[in-house]
Amino acid sequence: MKLATYFRSSAAYRVRIALALKGVSCKPEFVHLLRDGGEQHGAAYRARNPAELVPLLETDGGDLLTQSLAIIEYLDETVPEPALLPGDALHRARIRAFALAIACDIHPLNNLRVLQRLTRAHGQTQEAIDGWYRHWIMLGLPPLEAMLAQSGHNGPFCFGTAPTLADICLVPQLANARRYDCALDAFPRLLQADAACRALPAFAAAAPEAQPDAA
Amino acid sequence: MKLATYFRSSAAYRVRIALALKGVSCKPEFVHLLRDGGEQHGAAYRARNPAELVPLLETDGGDLLTQSLAIIEYLDETVPEPALLPGDALHRARIRAFALAIACDIHPLNNLRVLQRLTRAHGQTQEAIDGWYRHWIMLGLPPLEAMLAQSGHNGPFCFGTAPTLADICLVPQLANARRYDCALDAFPRLLQADAACRALPAFAAAAPEAQPDAA
Repeated sequence: MKLATYFRSSAAYRVRIALALKGVSCKPEFVHLLRDGGEQHGAAYRARNPAELVPLLETDGGDLLTQSLAIIEYLDETVPEPALLPGDALHRARIRAFALAIACDIHPLNNLRVLQRLTRAHGQTQEAIDGWYRHWIMLGLPPLEAMLAQSGHNGPFCFGTAPTLADICLVPQLANARRYDCALDAFPRLLQADAACRALPAFAAAAPEAQPDAA
Repeated sequence: MKLATYFRSSAAYRVRIALALKGVSCKPEFVHLLRDGGEQHGAAYRARNPAELVPLLETDGGDLLTQSLAIIEYLDETVPEPALLPGDALHRARIRAFALAIACDIHPLNNLRVLQRLTRAHGQTQEAIDGWYRHWIMLGLPPLEAMLAQSGHNGPFCFGTAPTLADICLVPQLANARRYDCALDAFPRLLQADAACRALPAFAAAAPEAQPDAA
């Protein structure tokens, strides 16, 4: 397999974690989102992924898969162990809801292209952009903490004693929160899961700072 | 089951379609997103859904489920027919990627709370907001059209002869596009799927204008 990735992309980071947890070896293909106006906008990449976003997974059969959560569900269906969506339908719904609360309600608003649009077309200053970024994180994290409190699990991971799709989405989001100096003390369950994950080799290997394309 | 819904919410619209396709009867609970500063922000609703968003599905067992795509996957796992994610892992990945390209890359940017934030905290005029809204739609639709072109299916639905999760996400998004006068001529495959869907009773029953809480 081959993964189009950028070290700082949260969506690529999620797929890197899933691949590492599954023990699937994958050749990275580095797409620099800032160089030359963004390599994801170049004709060669656009022909393979018209959305001009990372990640993009190329399977051994040459199929091109987009969207981090769709890629991770695909990996979970084709390489079942360890299960990233374990349990019954209700448990899986809770894990997916947690993941989507990050992937739909926080992350898209803070994506690079959105910040660029706010600057270039809507005249926002860097200070305003930073406020926007923190706003969506600090609005999005309390419901996540509440979901874990209501789940009846005591960790150390989001939904029990092994990492799931929920943890895979949480860790990159908290990395972004720290990068923008968001105060995280009010989220002990999220911090516990994050720490448990980051102690695992699969999460460590997938981290932005461990990528060959990190600045 | 009970569904917290608002007629104009795209995410609630998706779940209404899925419920109708599955033939699952569900009592609506109307949450007006604009009245009294937004009923989703009231204490009673917030206690049930800390994210202060619709939809919220309450199962017959009293479990509370959030996030439209997680709810639909739950319905698909518990009420298998008709399958909303049919086929093998690759086919399912394509359907999910299409759905997520709407649910992550377009819809979150045009959500009510985002438009309110742009107005209230970032000084954007109505004209600027309308431009923002159309920008994300017109950036997001071409990759969707390309995904269908590359899929090898000839319709009439997104991925073959029956509607899937992809169609469930497409129809509400195109309704929004029309509401903001976006030109859709360049997307014949999307329009074909949309028309095929809207001719089905399940989609018609779920439409915003068919809801009791429509203005």
